[in-house]
Amino acid sequence: METIRSPDELRYWVESWRLENRSVGFVPTMGALHAGHLALVRHASQLADRVVASIFVNPTQFGAGEDFERYPRDEERDSELLQEGGCHLLFLPEPSTIYPQGHSTFVEMGPPAERLEGEFRPGHFRGVATVVTLLLNLVRPDHAVFGQKDAQQLAVVRRLVRDLHLPVEIASHPTVREPDGLAMSSRNAYLSAEERTAASAIYRALSSAREHIEQGEHSATEIRRVLREVLEREPLIDIEYAEVVEADSFEPAGVIRGSIVMPVAVQIGTTRLIDNIPMEVD
Amino acid sequence: METIRSPDELRYWVESWRLENRSVGFVPTMGALHAGHLALVRHASQLADRVVASIFVNPTQFGAGEDFERYPRDEERDSELLQEGGCHLLFLPEPSTIYPQGHSTFVEMGPPAERLEGEFRPGHFRGVATVVTLLLNLVRPDHAVFGQKDAQQLAVVRRLVRDLHLPVEIASHPTVREPDGLAMSSRNAYLSAEERTAASAIYRALSSAREHIEQGEHSATEIRRVLREVLEREPLIDIEYAEVVEADSFEPAGVIRGSIVMPVAVQIGTTRLIDNIPMEVD
Repeated sequence: METIRSPDELRYWVESWRLENRSVGFVPTMGALHAGHLALVRHASQLADRVVASIFVNPTQFGAGEDFERYPRDEERDSELLQEGGCHLLFLPEPSTIYPQGHSTFVEMGPPAERLEGEFRPGHFRGVATVVTLLLNLVRPDHAVFGQKDAQQLAVVRRLVRDLHLPVEIASHPTVREPDGLAMSSRNAYLSAEERTAASAIYRALSSAREHIEQGEHSATEIRRVLREVLEREPLIDIEYAEVVEADSFEPAGVIRGSIVMPVAVQIGTTRLIDNIPMEVD
Repeated sequence: METIRSPDELRYWVESWRLENRSVGFVPTMGALHAGHLALVRHASQLADRVVASIFVNPTQFGAGEDFERYPRDEERDSELLQEGGCHLLFLPEPSTIYPQGHSTFVEMGPPAERLEGEFRPGHFRGVATVVTLLLNLVRPDHAVFGQKDAQQLAVVRRLVRDLHLPVEIASHPTVREPDGLAMSSRNAYLSAEERTAASAIYRALSSAREHIEQGEHSATEIRRVLREVLEREPLIDIEYAEVVEADSFEPAGVIRGSIVMPVAVQIGTTRLIDNIPMEVD
């Protein structure tokens, strides 16, 4: 695996692969890698001949008072994991490479970026949409792979690529979970032992809601009630939202039918966690 | 020259040229072509092996009450002119191709998009930046050529391409003028005979300001005064702005030195015209 920091080196590698007729897959990350990220890398290596991963803790997608400064960073370990995971090229840009001096251009979106994360983290998806556009323009992959754990981000990226006519195929990979069901997340490292135990209630709530749907429940109101009921039993958890939405638009679902997602965001102590379960319902 | 309407056909042509190792130049237009556009096509054919032109009257860059509806359209004549001018491929998309149903993604910019045209035509550069991004993503040219007549648009596009890391070289071509100096513009067709005569004052004002600078005038205040003085002598002209700005940022110049532009916008009857002269000053 090569590790590079400049767009020129990136272009050199990707263009040399193109000349050999090799397709390119891309996995953008913020580092602090876990098994979920490595599943994305494996997925990319099944779609494409060469895999590029990037590590860039993107300042523009963090709000004031969020965890940009304390976000975990460990280049050496991340680099080892990517190498073992089958990544061919690691792109590690400086912020001034991604956002050159005087940068003033942002990608702004309507739905599906407006609700839920869009409400609770104003400006978050503007930062996400912008950095994804920049990284896709720099890497120019044939495929880019995103995790389903960030379900709304995935919907935003799909819309972005369609609306901007970006020449890339977007693929997604299911959420990788700990044995008790907690979704793998770089932010799990913030949790105390007690908080870590409490966090397992998120997947219990989602699983319970899924069971209700599988058993024929079609009322979104009832599913929202089930989600909240399980989460509220855990005193360390503060619910930000626990929703049922249409998968493409992230608009609230009325009747549960077709492609839906149940996204949940909670605060546990000073840590904010999100999770979801997507479903296809007849 | 081939005329196509779908992104798939566009991709087919551009990719077949790439396989032959031919470079691609692109000239985006809104049609109603004149000698200025044809100079852009010639310029593109000097930079690249194959030239794509697009005709798309972009709704998102027109404000409420502007001339979107009455903007001149003549596909047949435009098509003949492009063919004669050496264009290889004409891309004539439908609005629903460029902006698919539910399109909600826009490119928003700070400077150089905020002042002058940005103030007098709110939303204009958002529409320009968005459509240029979409067209560049669809065509994927090596070079794109823009006219210097729209000097602020050129600065916006250069910033856009830099900030979004778009993989294209931007080139520009000097303004083509009528014998009396009036900049060629599709909107000149709106002018009555009397208004057309009055419009020549724009270039007289710019030329007079240029002469003052060439003779050593370094005060931007004095140059603004010269521009206004000549324009105000023409009773049919209402000045929107007559400015001296830094070429990259379009911020007001204090002392006239380095790369500057003198942009002017006027209203003549119901017609809005812009023009400018760029200068390099020691």
